[in-house]
Amino acid sequence: MTDKRPLLQQLIDALRCLPGVGNKSAQRMAFNVLQHNRDGAKELAEVLLEAVERIGQCSQCQNLTEDEICSICINPRREPKSLCVVESPADVIALEQATGYQGHYFVLHGRLSPLDGIGPDDLGLGKLDAIFRNGQLQELILATNSTVEGEATAFYIQSLAQKHNISISRIAHGVPLGGELEYIDQGTLAHAFGSRLTLEQ
Amino acid sequence: MTDKRPLLQQLIDALRCLPGVGNKSAQRMAFNVLQHNRDGAKELAEVLLEAVERIGQCSQCQNLTEDEICSICINPRREPKSLCVVESPADVIALEQATGYQGHYFVLHGRLSPLDGIGPDDLGLGKLDAIFRNGQLQELILATNSTVEGEATAFYIQSLAQKHNISISRIAHGVPLGGELEYIDQGTLAHAFGSRLTLEQ
Repeated sequence: MTDKRPLLQQLIDALRCLPGVGNKSAQRMAFNVLQHNRDGAKELAEVLLEAVERIGQCSQCQNLTEDEICSICINPRREPKSLCVVESPADVIALEQATGYQGHYFVLHGRLSPLDGIGPDDLGLGKLDAIFRNGQLQELILATNSTVEGEATAFYIQSLAQKHNISISRIAHGVPLGGELEYIDQGTLAHAFGSRLTLEQ
Repeated sequence: MTDKRPLLQQLIDALRCLPGVGNKSAQRMAFNVLQHNRDGAKELAEVLLEAVERIGQCSQCQNLTEDEICSICINPRREPKSLCVVESPADVIALEQATGYQGHYFVLHGRLSPLDGIGPDDLGLGKLDAIFRNGQLQELILATNSTVEGEATAFYIQSLAQKHNISISRIAHGVPLGGELEYIDQGTLAHAFGSRLTLEQ
Protein backbone atom coordinates (compact mmCIF):
# COMPACT_ATOMS: atom_id res chain seq x y z
CA MET A 1 0.00 0.00 0.00
CA THR A 2 1.48 3.37 -0.98
CA ASP A 3 -1.01 5.36 1.07
CA LYS A 4 0.82 8.09 2.99
CA ARG A 5 -1.70 8.36 5.85
CA PRO A 6 -0.78 6.55 9.07
CA LEU A 7 -2.38 3.12 9.20
CA LEU A 8 -4.49 4.15 12.18
CA GLN A 9 -5.95 7.07 10.20
CA GLN A 10 -6.60 4.76 7.25
CA LEU A 11 -8.50 2.44 9.58
CA ILE A 12 -10.57 5.30 11.01
CA ASP A 13 -11.40 6.53 7.50
CA ALA A 14 -12.25 3.01 6.30
CA LEU A 15 -14.63 2.43 9.22
CA ARG A 16 -16.66 5.43 8.08
CA CYS A 17 -17.96 3.37 5.14
CA LEU A 18 -20.31 1.75 7.67
CA PRO A 19 -23.71 3.46 7.87
CA GLY A 20 -24.22 5.69 10.90
CA VAL A 21 -20.50 5.83 11.71
CA GLY A 22 -18.99 9.31 11.79
CA ASN A 23 -15.48 10.42 12.66
CA LYS A 24 -15.82 10.11 16.45
CA SER A 25 -17.50 6.70 16.31
CA ALA A 26 -14.89 5.45 13.85
CA GLN A 27 -12.10 6.62 16.17
CA ARG A 28 -13.74 4.90 19.10
CA MET A 29 -14.18 1.67 17.12
CA ALA A 30 -10.59 1.71 15.87
CA PHE A 31 -9.10 2.28 19.32
CA ASN A 32 -11.44 -0.21 20.93
CA VAL A 33 -10.68 -3.11 18.62
CA LEU A 34 -6.95 -2.40 18.57
CA GLN A 35 -6.75 -2.22 22.35
CA HIS A 36 -9.26 -4.82 23.45
CA ASN A 37 -10.40 -7.08 20.62
CA ARG A 38 -7.79 -7.84 17.96
CA ASP A 39 -9.10 -11.37 17.47
CA GLY A 40 -12.63 -10.07 16.86
CA ALA A 41 -11.31 -7.48 14.42
CA LYS A 42 -9.32 -10.09 12.52
CA GLU A 43 -12.37 -12.33 12.27
CA LEU A 44 -14.49 -9.37 11.14
CA ALA A 45 -11.95 -8.56 8.41
CA GLU A 46 -11.87 -12.15 7.16
CA VAL A 47 -15.65 -12.61 7.20
CA LEU A 48 -16.13 -9.22 5.53
CA LEU A 49 -13.74 -10.11 2.70
CA GLU A 50 -15.42 -13.48 2.20
CA ALA A 51 -18.90 -11.93 2.32
CA VAL A 52 -18.05 -9.26 -0.24
CA GLU A 53 -16.61 -11.92 -2.54
CA ARG A 54 -19.28 -14.57 -2.18
CA ILE A 55 -22.65 -13.10 -1.17
CA GLY A 56 -24.94 -12.45 -4.09
CA GLN A 57 -28.67 -12.63 -4.79
CA CYS A 58 -30.72 -15.82 -4.72
CA SER A 59 -31.71 -16.63 -8.29
CA GLN A 60 -35.32 -17.26 -7.21
CA CYS A 61 -36.21 -14.71 -4.53
CA GLN A 62 -33.36 -12.13 -4.83
CA ASN A 63 -32.56 -12.42 -1.11
CA LEU A 64 -28.88 -12.14 -0.17
CA THR A 65 -27.13 -15.50 0.02
CA GLU A 66 -23.74 -17.06 -0.65
CA ASP A 67 -25.41 -19.90 -2.56
CA GLU A 68 -27.12 -20.04 -5.94
CA ILE A 69 -30.48 -20.55 -4.20
CA CYS A 70 -31.07 -19.29 -0.66
CA SER A 71 -31.81 -21.50 2.35
CA ILE A 72 -35.52 -20.56 2.35
CA CYS A 73 -36.14 -21.23 -1.36
CA ILE A 74 -34.25 -24.53 -1.23
CA ASN A 75 -36.06 -25.76 1.92
CA PRO A 76 -38.61 -28.44 0.82
CA ARG A 77 -40.70 -27.82 3.96
CA ARG A 78 -41.52 -24.26 2.93
CA GLU A 79 -44.78 -23.81 1.05
CA PRO A 80 -44.09 -22.63 -2.54
CA LYS A 81 -47.77 -21.70 -3.03
CA SER A 82 -47.37 -18.67 -0.73
CA LEU A 83 -45.20 -15.70 -1.62
CA CYS A 84 -44.49 -12.66 0.54
CA VAL A 85 -43.07 -9.59 -1.21
CA VAL A 86 -40.77 -7.39 0.91
CA GLU A 87 -38.53 -4.43 0.20
CA SER A 88 -35.29 -5.59 1.83
CA PRO A 89 -33.45 -8.63 3.23
CA ALA A 90 -33.80 -7.09 6.70
CA ASP A 91 -37.59 -7.39 6.30
CA VAL A 92 -37.21 -11.14 5.66
CA ILE A 93 -35.27 -11.53 8.91
CA ALA A 94 -37.85 -9.45 10.82
CA LEU A 95 -40.77 -11.52 9.46
CA GLU A 96 -38.96 -14.82 10.07
CA GLN A 97 -38.34 -13.85 13.69
CA ALA A 98 -41.80 -12.42 14.38
CA THR A 99 -44.15 -14.73 12.47
CA GLY A 100 -44.61 -18.42 11.80
CA TYR A 101 -44.88 -17.80 8.04
CA GLN A 102 -43.85 -20.91 6.16
CA GLY A 103 -44.03 -19.72 2.55
CA HIS A 104 -41.46 -18.15 0.24
CA TYR A 105 -40.32 -14.55 -0.08
CA PHE A 106 -39.49 -12.18 -2.89
CA VAL A 107 -37.05 -9.37 -2.09
CA LEU A 108 -37.36 -6.21 -4.18
CA HIS A 109 -34.21 -4.46 -2.87
CA GLY A 110 -36.02 -1.15 -3.02
CA ARG A 111 -39.34 0.30 -4.06
CA LEU A 112 -40.75 1.97 -7.15
CA SER A 113 -39.53 5.55 -7.17
CA PRO A 114 -39.70 7.23 -10.56
CA LEU A 115 -38.09 10.41 -9.21
CA ASP A 116 -34.96 8.40 -8.33
CA GLY A 117 -35.14 6.53 -11.62
CA ILE A 118 -36.10 3.24 -9.97
CA GLY A 119 -38.57 1.40 -12.20
CA PRO A 120 -40.04 -2.13 -12.32
CA ASP A 121 -36.92 -3.60 -13.98
CA ASP A 122 -34.65 -2.43 -11.13
CA LEU A 123 -36.74 -4.36 -8.62
CA GLY A 124 -36.86 -7.59 -10.65
CA LEU A 125 -40.60 -7.31 -11.20
CA GLY A 126 -40.21 -9.15 -14.51
CA LYS A 127 -39.01 -12.17 -12.53
CA LEU A 128 -41.94 -11.74 -10.13
CA ASP A 129 -44.37 -11.57 -13.06
CA ALA A 130 -42.90 -14.83 -14.39
CA ILE A 131 -43.69 -16.45 -11.02
CA PHE A 132 -47.30 -15.21 -11.34
CA ARG A 133 -47.57 -16.56 -14.91
CA ASN A 134 -46.15 -19.90 -13.76
CA GLY A 135 -49.58 -20.56 -12.21
CA GLN A 136 -48.42 -22.36 -9.08
CA LEU A 137 -48.92 -19.43 -6.74
CA GLN A 138 -52.11 -19.33 -4.66
CA GLU A 139 -51.39 -16.63 -2.09
CA LEU A 140 -49.57 -13.34 -2.42
CA ILE A 141 -48.80 -11.21 0.66
CA LEU A 142 -47.70 -7.62 0.02
CA ALA A 143 -45.44 -6.59 2.90
CA THR A 144 -43.80 -3.49 1.44
CA ASN A 145 -43.41 -0.56 3.82
CA SER A 146 -46.27 1.76 4.57
CA THR A 147 -44.74 4.74 2.77
CA VAL A 148 -46.00 6.46 -0.37
CA GLU A 149 -43.51 4.52 -2.53
CA GLY A 150 -44.15 1.28 -0.65
CA GLU A 151 -47.90 1.62 -1.20
CA ALA A 152 -47.38 2.43 -4.89
CA THR A 153 -45.13 -0.62 -5.25
CA ALA A 154 -47.72 -2.84 -3.56
CA PHE A 155 -50.41 -1.44 -5.85
CA TYR A 156 -48.29 -2.07 -8.95
CA ILE A 157 -47.57 -5.68 -7.92
CA GLN A 158 -51.25 -6.17 -7.11
CA SER A 159 -52.15 -5.06 -10.63
CA LEU A 160 -49.64 -7.58 -12.05
CA ALA A 161 -51.02 -10.42 -9.93
CA GLN A 162 -54.74 -9.91 -10.20
CA LYS A 163 -54.88 -11.14 -13.80
CA HIS A 164 -53.96 -14.55 -12.44
CA ASN A 165 -56.05 -16.50 -9.96
CA ILE A 166 -54.10 -15.49 -6.84
CA SER A 167 -55.43 -14.48 -3.44
CA ILE A 168 -53.76 -11.14 -2.68
CA SER A 169 -53.43 -9.56 0.79
CA ARG A 170 -51.66 -6.57 2.31
CA ILE A 171 -50.23 -6.63 5.84
CA ALA A 172 -52.44 -4.69 8.30
CA HIS A 173 -51.68 -1.11 9.20
CA GLY A 174 -52.95 0.51 12.35
CA VAL A 175 -52.13 1.25 15.97
CA PRO A 176 -49.09 -0.82 17.13
CA LEU A 177 -49.70 -3.31 19.94
CA GLY A 178 -49.20 -1.58 23.28
CA GLY A 179 -49.47 1.82 21.56
CA GLU A 180 -51.52 4.53 23.22
CA LEU A 181 -53.91 6.44 20.96
CA GLU A 182 -52.82 9.71 22.50
CA TYR A 183 -49.28 9.33 21.14
CA ILE A 184 -50.00 7.80 17.72
CA ASP A 185 -49.50 10.05 14.70
CA GLN A 186 -52.63 11.37 12.99
CA GLY A 187 -52.14 9.44 9.72
CA THR A 188 -51.89 6.08 11.47
CA LEU A 189 -54.85 6.86 13.72
CA ALA A 190 -57.04 7.95 10.79
CA HIS A 191 -56.08 4.76 8.92
CA ALA A 192 -56.75 2.56 11.95
CA PHE A 193 -60.13 4.24 12.49
CA GLY A 194 -61.13 3.93 8.83
CA SER A 195 -60.05 0.28 8.62
CA ARG A 196 -61.84 -0.77 11.80
CA LEU A 197 -62.88 -4.41 11.92
CA THR A 198 -66.38 -5.50 12.87
CA LEU A 199 -66.34 -7.74 15.95
CA GLU A 200 -68.32 -10.92 15.89
CA GLN A 201 -71.32 -10.83 18.28
CA MET B 1 -14.34 -22.21 7.06
CA THR B 2 -16.46 -24.97 8.56
CA ASP B 3 -18.89 -22.59 10.28
CA LYS B 4 -22.47 -23.77 9.67
CA ARG B 5 -24.09 -20.36 10.00
CA PRO B 6 -24.94 -18.60 6.72
CA LEU B 7 -22.19 -16.19 5.71
CA LEU B 8 -24.55 -13.23 6.14
CA GLN B 9 -25.24 -14.24 9.75
CA GLN B 10 -21.51 -14.67 10.36
CA LEU B 11 -20.96 -11.14 9.06
CA ILE B 12 -23.71 -9.72 11.29
CA ASP B 13 -22.24 -11.50 14.32
CA ALA B 14 -18.70 -10.39 13.48
CA LEU B 15 -19.77 -6.73 13.17
CA ARG B 16 -20.97 -6.86 16.78
CA CYS B 17 -17.34 -6.88 17.94
CA LEU B 18 -17.38 -3.13 17.24
CA PRO B 19 -18.26 -1.03 20.29
CA GLY B 20 -21.79 0.33 20.36
CA VAL B 21 -23.00 -2.04 17.62
CA GLY B 22 -25.89 -4.29 18.61
CA ASN B 23 -27.83 -6.78 16.53
CA LYS B 24 -29.98 -4.27 14.63
CA SER B 25 -27.08 -1.96 13.83
CA ALA B 26 -24.96 -4.91 12.69
CA GLN B 27 -27.78 -6.06 10.39
CA ARG B 28 -28.12 -2.58 8.96
CA MET B 29 -24.35 -2.32 8.42
CA ALA B 30 -24.12 -5.73 6.77
CA PHE B 31 -27.01 -5.08 4.37
CA ASN B 32 -25.83 -1.57 3.64
CA VAL B 33 -22.27 -2.49 2.67
CA LEU B 34 -23.36 -5.57 0.69
CA GLN B 35 -25.96 -3.62 -1.24
CA HIS B 36 -24.32 -0.25 -1.69
CA ASN B 37 -20.64 -0.25 -0.81
CA ARG B 38 -18.77 -3.47 -1.55
CA ASP B 39 -15.60 -1.59 -2.48
CA GLY B 40 -15.62 0.27 0.82
CA ALA B 41 -16.21 -2.96 2.72
CA LYS B 42 -13.34 -4.67 0.91
CA GLU B 43 -11.01 -1.79 1.71
CA LEU B 44 -12.17 -1.82 5.35
CA ALA B 45 -11.43 -5.56 5.58
CA GLU B 46 -7.95 -5.14 4.11
CA VAL B 47 -7.03 -2.12 6.26
CA LEU B 48 -8.44 -3.84 9.35
CA LEU B 49 -6.33 -6.96 8.75
CA GLU B 50 -3.22 -4.87 8.16
CA ALA B 51 -3.92 -2.70 11.22
CA VAL B 52 -4.41 -5.70 13.51
CA GLU B 53 -1.16 -7.20 12.24
CA ARG B 54 1.02 -4.12 12.27
CA ILE B 55 -0.21 -1.51 14.76
CA GLY B 56 1.52 -1.69 18.12
CA GLN B 57 2.69 0.77 20.74
CA CYS B 58 5.37 3.40 20.20
CA SER B 59 8.45 2.34 22.20
CA GLN B 60 8.79 5.87 23.59
CA CYS B 61 5.30 7.24 24.28
CA GLN B 62 3.11 4.09 24.09
CA ASN B 63 0.80 5.72 21.51
CA LEU B 64 -0.60 3.40 18.83
CA THR B 65 1.53 3.32 15.68
CA GLU B 66 2.57 0.92 12.94
CA ASP B 67 6.21 2.03 13.36
CA GLU B 68 8.75 1.40 16.09
CA ILE B 69 8.55 5.07 17.08
CA CYS B 70 5.42 7.14 16.38
CA SER B 71 5.28 10.15 14.07
CA ILE B 72 5.16 12.61 16.98
CA CYS B 73 8.14 11.16 18.88
CA ILE B 74 10.23 10.93 15.71
CA ASN B 75 9.42 14.48 14.56
CA PRO B 76 12.54 16.64 15.22
CA ARG B 77 10.40 19.81 15.31
CA ARG B 78 8.54 18.66 18.42
CA GLU B 79 9.93 19.88 21.72
CA PRO B 80 11.25 16.91 23.79
CA LYS B 81 11.46 19.07 26.92
CA SER B 82 7.64 19.09 27.25
CA LEU B 83 5.63 15.98 28.01
CA CYS B 84 1.85 15.69 28.19
CA VAL B 85 0.44 12.59 29.94
CA VAL B 86 -2.94 11.36 28.64
CA GLU B 87 -5.07 8.29 29.26
CA SER B 88 -5.77 7.18 25.69
CA PRO B 89 -4.67 7.62 22.06
CA ALA B 90 -8.00 9.37 21.39
CA ASP B 91 -6.92 12.08 23.85
CA VAL B 92 -3.75 12.66 21.80
CA ILE B 93 -5.86 13.22 18.67
CA ALA B 94 -8.23 15.54 20.55
CA LEU B 95 -5.34 17.64 21.93
CA GLU B 96 -3.55 17.72 18.56
CA GLN B 97 -6.69 19.01 16.88
CA ALA B 98 -7.64 21.53 19.57
CA THR B 99 -4.31 22.96 20.73
CA GLY B 100 -1.04 24.13 19.24
CA TYR B 101 0.94 21.97 21.69
CA GLN B 102 4.33 21.15 20.19
CA GLY B 103 5.78 18.81 22.83
CA HIS B 104 5.68 15.05 23.25
CA TYR B 105 2.99 12.81 24.75
CA PHE B 106 2.89 9.80 27.01
CA VAL B 107 -0.14 7.51 26.64
CA LEU B 108 -1.10 5.49 29.73
CA HIS B 109 -3.77 3.31 28.03
CA GLY B 110 -5.87 3.48 31.17
CA ARG B 111 -5.74 4.90 34.68
CA LEU B 112 -4.77 3.64 38.09
CA SER B 113 -7.64 1.53 39.39
CA PRO B 114 -6.68 -0.85 42.21
CA LEU B 115 -10.19 -2.34 42.31
CA ASP B 116 -9.78 -3.50 38.71
CA GLY B 117 -6.23 -4.65 39.41
CA ILE B 118 -4.67 -1.90 37.30
CA GLY B 119 -1.46 -0.71 38.95
CA PRO B 120 1.50 1.47 37.92
CA ASP B 121 3.15 -1.33 35.93
CA ASP B 122 0.09 -1.79 33.69
CA LEU B 123 0.26 1.87 32.65
CA GLY B 124 4.00 1.85 31.90
CA LEU B 125 4.75 4.26 34.75
CA GLY B 126 8.21 2.67 35.10
CA LYS B 127 8.99 3.90 31.60
CA LEU B 128 7.61 7.34 32.51
CA ASP B 129 9.76 7.41 35.66
CA ALA B 130 12.80 6.62 33.52
CA ILE B 131 11.99 9.68 31.38
CA PHE B 132 11.85 11.79 34.57
CA ARG B 133 15.20 10.39 35.77
CA ASN B 134 16.72 11.10 32.37
CA GLY B 135 16.77 14.78 33.41
CA GLN B 136 15.94 16.30 30.02
CA LEU B 137 12.32 17.05 30.84
CA GLN B 138 11.43 20.60 31.89
CA GLU B 139 7.64 20.66 31.68
CA LEU B 140 5.08 18.01 32.56
CA ILE B 141 1.39 18.49 31.73
CA LEU B 142 -1.05 16.13 33.40
CA ALA B 143 -4.05 15.74 31.10
CA THR B 144 -5.71 12.65 32.57
CA ASN B 145 -9.50 12.76 32.80
CA SER B 146 -11.25 14.57 35.59
CA THR B 147 -12.57 11.39 37.23
CA VAL B 148 -11.63 9.96 40.61
CA GLU B 149 -9.21 7.51 39.00
CA GLY B 150 -7.89 10.13 36.60
CA GLU B 151 -7.17 12.51 39.48
CA ALA B 152 -5.50 9.74 41.48
CA THR B 153 -3.36 8.85 38.47
CA ALA B 154 -2.36 12.49 38.00
CA PHE B 155 -1.49 12.74 41.69
CA TYR B 156 0.62 9.57 41.53
CA ILE B 157 2.55 10.82 38.48
CA GLN B 158 2.99 14.20 40.16
CA SER B 159 4.58 12.48 43.17
CA LEU B 160 6.97 10.64 40.82
CA ALA B 161 7.95 13.81 38.99
CA GLN B 162 8.36 16.28 41.82
CA LYS B 163 11.61 14.73 43.02
CA HIS B 164 13.14 15.93 39.77
CA ASN B 165 13.37 19.55 38.74
CA ILE B 166 10.29 19.57 36.48
CA SER B 167 7.55 22.19 36.20
CA ILE B 168 4.29 20.28 36.65
CA SER B 169 0.83 21.49 35.59
CA ARG B 170 -2.67 20.05 35.38
CA ILE B 171 -5.13 21.03 32.64
CA ALA B 172 -7.79 23.47 33.93
CA HIS B 173 -11.19 22.24 35.03
CA GLY B 174 -14.23 24.47 35.20
CA VAL B 175 -17.22 25.73 33.26
CA PRO B 176 -16.92 24.79 29.54
CA LEU B 177 -16.76 27.66 27.05
CA GLY B 178 -20.29 28.64 26.05
CA GLY B 179 -21.68 26.77 29.05
CA GLU B 180 -24.43 28.38 31.10
CA LEU B 181 -24.00 28.22 34.88
CA GLU B 182 -27.64 27.22 35.29
CA TYR B 183 -27.05 23.92 33.49
CA ILE B 184 -23.59 22.98 34.81
CA ASP B 185 -23.44 20.13 37.32
CA GLN B 186 -22.77 21.09 40.94
CA GLY B 187 -19.33 19.45 41.16
CA THR B 188 -17.98 21.36 38.18
CA LEU B 189 -19.51 24.61 39.39
CA ALA B 190 -18.08 24.20 42.90
CA HIS B 191 -14.66 23.46 41.39
CA ALA B 192 -14.85 26.43 39.02
CA PHE B 193 -15.88 28.74 41.88
CA GLY B 194 -13.14 27.47 44.19
CA SER B 195 -10.45 27.70 41.49
CA ARG B 196 -11.38 31.24 40.42
CA LEU B 197 -8.56 33.27 38.91
CA THR B 198 -7.76 36.79 40.03
CA LEU B 199 -8.05 39.24 37.14
CA GLU B 200 -5.31 41.75 36.58
CA GLN B 201 -6.41 45.33 37.29
